[in-house]
Amino acid sequence: MNKIDFDLKSYLSKKQNIINGRLVRIIRSCAGNDRVTDAMLYSLMAGGKRVRPVLCMAAAEAVGGSAQDVLTAACALEMIHTYSLIHDDLPAMDDDELRRGKPTCHTAFDEATAVLAGDALLTLAFQILSSTDSTDGNTNAKWLRVVHVIAIAAGSSGMIGGQMQDIVSEGVRISMQELEKMHHLKTGALIEASISTGAILGDGNATQIKQLEIYAKNTGIAFQITDDNLNVEGDPDVLGKAVGTDEAREKTTYPSLLGLKKSKELAREKTNNALRALDIFDNSADPLRAIASYIVERKR
Amino acid sequence: MNKIDFDLKSYLSKKQNIINGRLVRIIRSCAGNDRVTDAMLYSLMAGGKRVRPVLCMAAAEAVGGSAQDVLTAACALEMIHTYSLIHDDLPAMDDDELRRGKPTCHTAFDEATAVLAGDALLTLAFQILSSTDSTDGNTNAKWLRVVHVIAIAAGSSGMIGGQMQDIVSEGVRISMQELEKMHHLKTGALIEASISTGAILGDGNATQIKQLEIYAKNTGIAFQITDDNLNVEGDPDVLGKAVGTDEAREKTTYPSLLGLKKSKELAREKTNNALRALDIFDNSADPLRAIASYIVERKR
Repeated sequence: MNKIDFDLKSYLSKKQNIINGRLVRIIRSCAGNDRVTDAMLYSLMAGGKRVRPVLCMAAAEAVGGSAQDVLTAACALEMIHTYSLIHDDLPAMDDDELRRGKPTCHTAFDEATAVLAGDALLTLAFQILSSTDSTDGNTNAKWLRVVHVIAIAAGSSGMIGGQMQDIVSEGVRISMQELEKMHHLKTGALIEASISTGAILGDGNATQIKQLEIYAKNTGIAFQITDDNLNVEGDPDVLGKAVGTDEAREKTTYPSLLGLKKSKELAREKTNNALRALDIFDNSADPLRAIASYIVERKR
Repeated sequence: MNKIDFDLKSYLSKKQNIINGRLVRIIRSCAGNDRVTDAMLYSLMAGGKRVRPVLCMAAAEAVGGSAQDVLTAACALEMIHTYSLIHDDLPAMDDDELRRGKPTCHTAFDEATAVLAGDALLTLAFQILSSTDSTDGNTNAKWLRVVHVIAIAAGSSGMIGGQMQDIVSEGVRISMQELEKMHHLKTGALIEASISTGAILGDGNATQIKQLEIYAKNTGIAFQITDDNLNVEGDPDVLGKAVGTDEAREKTTYPSLLGLKKSKELAREKTNNALRALDIFDNSADPLRAIASYIVERKR
């Protein structure tokens, strides 16, 4: 792959601003119960990196589409990601009190509110994914396809299945293959769906979508490996959460199976695979190239 | 309204069999994680009356459509209803150990599994609502509209908002108006959406859809009032759950505000409103007529 000259920091910050603005507008305009709305906004605006929505927008741009046209879908993906964090943090699940350096939703509100705020974010995601007022049959078909792709990725054979697997695997030694599968479900599936969504709505052709799926698969794994590595060697102040928690819970992770050094090499290898998959694209895919490198080099 | 001669028992039993068969097939064919799938099936097949899917199918028939064509949507509505029960029963919410005479999901499995099974049912509902393989733009537009109608009804300005309101109202005396609003959100919104869904997918015209919405609104309230009444005077063995729990929790209910006698009169009045809204329909609406009467006369 080629060295690219791309100002990712400014790209991310521009996109994050657009996403944050739209997220707040959507929540306010669809507001129902005040307490649920407050909790939804609290978790949604708690400083997420907006990886999924940015990937969705960058994928649309890579295939020659418009980032603005996929913004609603990008926001839906962030809502689904945020709902999954709220539910994962619950006492019955991972029982985490801090998330991105702030009290988790059930700590700031209460458990019932956190369950319902998560449910509401998931539901709102599908509400906005189906909110097009287009009368064009092709447009309606594309959005319906996106609803389907996202629902499969988020469901029991995707993200939810991965989370269940993660819970029942605590304290159990699992193989490298099982670990990859679990992570693919828990994190990778929604990341892939984010990229597919951008490519579908951006009118990508079959070859483009296939290459982007390879990119997504490898980037997703690299993302998860880096998460595991940061849980070993990260700085809690930079991360905004405690480190060493995986080891304390006897969770099987990439560094616990491979050692930290090999685990970092593997993340780099997956990133290189991701970058190679973008070779068919011109510089419209530079944001995706820069994001793949950022994901593996990040400190939080 | 006219006295009708309609064998509701056989109609319901036929529809329930069709719905139950399809629900099991959907869950098995979309199965992801085994434990989540088991918990989904456990709660989904725990003896629900299938009120929402039957209403959806009956509404399609009322406007001259086919019950078979809306079966997938009917199943999605039952999944959303079931997910809401699983989450409502959680210790952090209503903390119920029995539901329809059987251990609740978190009692039979555990809390983490119950949270995830609920999440998975909600997600699967949207997955199957978007699973049409039609290439017809009009069909895609109808299903996308149904996704939207159902998401709004299930979200924080619908069912979830009602559940939050219900929780914060425990032990607080609320007015008749607030009670109606809460129930409309908690139960009525999804019942209305069930009927709208049937009417939309059955190609009902605007007048038909409007009359069915009036039917749905009144039937939904009558359903809730009857639920409240049964919590006072029902037979726990027939109901499959404890009675007197609303009073013990100091919940404001129709009988607590009006007394049992007036509360039963109100349920009857709402049912009559529902029946009158069906006057524009011929005997294709007989199932809906019979269901409205059944809802207010039921013992469980």
